[in-house]
Amino acid sequence: MTIPAALVGSAIEDIDTPALLLDLDLMERNIGRMTTAFQPLSAKLRPHAKTHKSPIIAHKQIAAGAIGITCAKVGEAEVMVEGGVRDILIANQIVGPQKIRRLVSLARHTDMMVAVDDLQNVKDLSEAAQAGKTLLRVLVEVNVGQNRCGVEPGEPALTLARQVAQAPGLTFAGLMGYEGHLVFVPSLEERVHRVHSDMQALIDTVNFIESSGLPVNIVSAGGTGTALITGRLPRITEIQAGSYVFMDGRYKTIEGVECDCVLTLLTTIISRPRPDHIIIDAGMKTLTHEFGLPRFKGCDELELLGLSEEHGTVKLNNQGGAYKPGEKIEIIPSHGDTTLNIHDYYYGVRNGRVETVWPIAARGKSRQKERT
Amino acid sequence: MTIPAALVGSAIEDIDTPALLLDLDLMERNIGRMTTAFQPLSAKLRPHAKTHKSPIIAHKQIAAGAIGITCAKVGEAEVMVEGGVRDILIANQIVGPQKIRRLVSLARHTDMMVAVDDLQNVKDLSEAAQAGKTLLRVLVEVNVGQNRCGVEPGEPALTLARQVAQAPGLTFAGLMGYEGHLVFVPSLEERVHRVHSDMQALIDTVNFIESSGLPVNIVSAGGTGTALITGRLPRITEIQAGSYVFMDGRYKTIEGVECDCVLTLLTTIISRPRPDHIIIDAGMKTLTHEFGLPRFKGCDELELLGLSEEHGTVKLNNQGGAYKPGEKIEIIPSHGDTTLNIHDYYYGVRNGRVETVWPIAARGKSRQKERT
Repeated sequence: MTIPAALVGSAIEDIDTPALLLDLDLMERNIGRMTTAFQPLSAKLRPHAKTHKSPIIAHKQIAAGAIGITCAKVGEAEVMVEGGVRDILIANQIVGPQKIRRLVSLARHTDMMVAVDDLQNVKDLSEAAQAGKTLLRVLVEVNVGQNRCGVEPGEPALTLARQVAQAPGLTFAGLMGYEGHLVFVPSLEERVHRVHSDMQALIDTVNFIESSGLPVNIVSAGGTGTALITGRLPRITEIQAGSYVFMDGRYKTIEGVECDCVLTLLTTIISRPRPDHIIIDAGMKTLTHEFGLPRFKGCDELELLGLSEEHGTVKLNNQGGAYKPGEKIEIIPSHGDTTLNIHDYYYGVRNGRVETVWPIAARGKSRQKERT
Repeated sequence: MTIPAALVGSAIEDIDTPALLLDLDLMERNIGRMTTAFQPLSAKLRPHAKTHKSPIIAHKQIAAGAIGITCAKVGEAEVMVEGGVRDILIANQIVGPQKIRRLVSLARHTDMMVAVDDLQNVKDLSEAAQAGKTLLRVLVEVNVGQNRCGVEPGEPALTLARQVAQAPGLTFAGLMGYEGHLVFVPSLEERVHRVHSDMQALIDTVNFIESSGLPVNIVSAGGTGTALITGRLPRITEIQAGSYVFMDGRYKTIEGVECDCVLTLLTTIISRPRPDHIIIDAGMKTLTHEFGLPRFKGCDELELLGLSEEHGTVKLNNQGGAYKPGEKIEIIPSHGDTTLNIHDYYYGVRNGRVETVWPIAARGKSRQKERT
């Protein structure tokens, strides 16, 4: 059995497939580019770690100037806290006694912040924080048009903010409003226009709550497609963009976002049943396609036609290539976040060689970190 | 941190979510039903373990009469061999020196069988089997219209069969032809007609190869939607259906297949932002939807509208229900095989309680079993 870490120093061709590769030069460039872009802005970057699920990459983002990280789930935050990452926003409602106990336990080891949109949840968090003798920072989530979670702007947000502020064990830290419905608007002009328009309700709500006497210190928003738009808006203090570190293939389809795709899937051709078709060892169990079928890196003549569970069927538009069984080719995932959620390791590569093997430590931690 | 095995004996409501549940009564019924259906057939059942990725379930299938199991990948087979499962078909091309070495290593510990469709691959397998001082059984894969892997029926199949038969270290065991393009044909009459029509080329090829003097002992085919059709055809000796043990939600859409869905995903309502919408803690990182958006178990008034990474947005068609944050509801995955490939455990439940917690031992083993 190959022990992945034993591959450090090997050539890329020696990695068995399917395997997720990280181009370390490109990753460092993406982190540096976002750091530079944020320097003139008043908003700070708190990158979403769901994109990499790896404490070492979170630490690299923080070293480059990020103020902390964002997680989607308690299980992800547990992995990050154990990896020594400090100052974590869980940009989500944490509901149910088991997860709330876990959240409170984390708050005793690092600075935790969580989103709420429901009074009973506020009461449950308050009770647990008191029992745990700790203090939880809380953001009230406001619906800015994504129509997922969140209270409505204005009066409903103020009401819940007051309830948080009055709840023992909780600190009302501010608001969160995620414009997830706008991050993939292809036209930059339209994206700018719609962000300005939809986020006004959030900004108005910040002002409304402050005018009632309650300070709003933190306002968190923004994805990779909107980071540099939302990050320029007044009152926005933090941006929770995550994808910028790897850049999914899908970002190639939107204007105004510089896109070096860091993550690739190395695959092997396992069959060439007909001259114009090859079959690769990557299917739905190694590669997701909810953002469209992925493209090949540097192989314009190859077109992925479809994925079954463990096979990809590829059309060869120029039949000249060799493309024999055993050859390896790279795919750029269209959605990295869900693709890496199937894998256990990254192979960090530079100059054609494996520089490092990193566990995808928070893979599958949609519930909690578990051990048997 | 909850240790899953510590939940044995607990009520279902005490399982933290998202969590995959197995209804053990229904699973036993599905295994029993298939056993009964196969009794009058000449073909035997060699169930595909990709559906459960769990040695204990493979052993239950074998105890009920299955002649061995089928795997898609070397990594899955490694997990099954370590779990004590014997007689394994890898219904796929195993390409590349690392995986071939692993396959040969497995063949020293159990009876392995593998599919081929390429002469160079036959040579590589032969060389490795000789070096490993073992014998590999080989099936020539024939394209029966799925147009994925496989040589064409007739002469190309005979040519490769002879090359296998002449290769030292290999035994020509027979043919494989998977009618994956027919398993979901909704009309039973049309499915029967098309299976008879498309599989005739495979049967003719069996007869053609035997008439050349080469015995064809094994002919493997069949998925859950076609098992009892293909399993009645002359010359077919083995059926590699796998999904029957759990039954995906998608099988409800095809005629002539009895469908008790064993696998459900327990989720928690984390928000009810509007009276007619609830948000659950299951998104694309816990539930796949390439076979369509899943349905809720026993809740016709709930309709899943979409999944983001960690959220599901649900329309409540009858606003009467309580459906408060914190309540738990069950979803029937539309595609179990890829859904369980994201999870680490099954909670086996019976009479409302957790009877057992089983690791999904071969989860993510699209390449190999790995350790750092």
